[in-house]
Amino acid sequence: MPHALVFDAYGTLFNVHSVQARCEALWPGKGALLSQTWRARQLEYTWQRSLMRRYAPFSQVTGDALVYSCELLGLKIGEQEKQALMDEYRKLALYPEVSNAMKKLKTKRAILSNGSPDMLDPLVAQSGLSFDAVLSVDELKVYKPAPEVYQLAVDRLKTPKEEIGFVSSNCWDALGAKSFGFTVYWINRAGAPLDRLGFQPDRIVKSLDEILL
Amino acid sequence: MPHALVFDAYGTLFNVHSVQARCEALWPGKGALLSQTWRARQLEYTWQRSLMRRYAPFSQVTGDALVYSCELLGLKIGEQEKQALMDEYRKLALYPEVSNAMKKLKTKRAILSNGSPDMLDPLVAQSGLSFDAVLSVDELKVYKPAPEVYQLAVDRLKTPKEEIGFVSSNCWDALGAKSFGFTVYWINRAGAPLDRLGFQPDRIVKSLDEILL
Repeated sequence: MPHALVFDAYGTLFNVHSVQARCEALWPGKGALLSQTWRARQLEYTWQRSLMRRYAPFSQVTGDALVYSCELLGLKIGEQEKQALMDEYRKLALYPEVSNAMKKLKTKRAILSNGSPDMLDPLVAQSGLSFDAVLSVDELKVYKPAPEVYQLAVDRLKTPKEEIGFVSSNCWDALGAKSFGFTVYWINRAGAPLDRLGFQPDRIVKSLDEILL
Repeated sequence: MPHALVFDAYGTLFNVHSVQARCEALWPGKGALLSQTWRARQLEYTWQRSLMRRYAPFSQVTGDALVYSCELLGLKIGEQEKQALMDEYRKLALYPEVSNAMKKLKTKRAILSNGSPDMLDPLVAQSGLSFDAVLSVDELKVYKPAPEVYQLAVDRLKTPKEEIGFVSSNCWDALGAKSFGFTVYWINRAGAPLDRLGFQPDRIVKSLDEILL
């Protein structure tokens, strides 16, 4: 077991698609499609803005991706619906095994997230989980999988990268962390194919529990 | 009219989804879905690898994205099918208006593409079009929309960016070029929503013809 574990937040500890129910309530029959389109565009905007060197906080990128996705799908969205959905992002559900698994964990632990503090801090606060550090890319103004993001965890935890285990459900994030030099656990809950980015995770697991065995 | 026009290749001059027919012939009923999934993943890999600083040529990224997409969709692909589809990429169809529109064009013109020379050069050669320069990100080892890619056109055409018009059907590419400082024409053939990346194209047109009017 590594000396410290660093966790991705969205999709790894917190279920991003739990916004789906709220989407479905607003636009019956479109919840799943909107939720997936929104998530995909949100990530694309983080990569594109990083390459353009036009960083904007994750809260803005997430709102922008929502407005785009609604327009793409022909769904009318006003300020009230947008606010309701953005609020939902601040109270995402934990995956079922996360609370118990984290209680058993004896190592140092941190979150390393794309989320800007205005989204991430309330989310972590309401989760009941505790961490040695909650780190956001926001202070670097560049998104994952840029190597300087993973370096932030090394610096803040004062732990060499060889002693850090990185946990993500987002395969590209796991492989970005592997490329940087972490020991990497990919939580592949959905049985997705491995992304072809020139790297392999050290371990592929089905849930957080398995990492602690 | 700007002093020089710089064109994106894939999706702008050449119809990427003309590979769809070949996909459909190989896996009946799945051509459209595979073609779209493949294109989306191809672009994601360019962004992710650029941020990871793990550039690989577009030919490799395109092949990797194909293999991933087939696995995702449960389609069995061997070396022969992969080669057939990669070959298709080297003989993509031009959009219908392109040949005539390019003949009317009086300015300097260049291609600025993500394509590596092994894919891009045969494609341009078979198109019957001629350019003052065919520029690939491959010499920079970073993909669009990084600003240094757009700078390459400035350097090679020896034309200040204020005098360059950039033409792309990929909205994120158009906005990356706008962020860099080009005058930008977004060819929005499909009536897609504008991407929310903090910039606006100078003109939105339905086809290449309209730019020359």
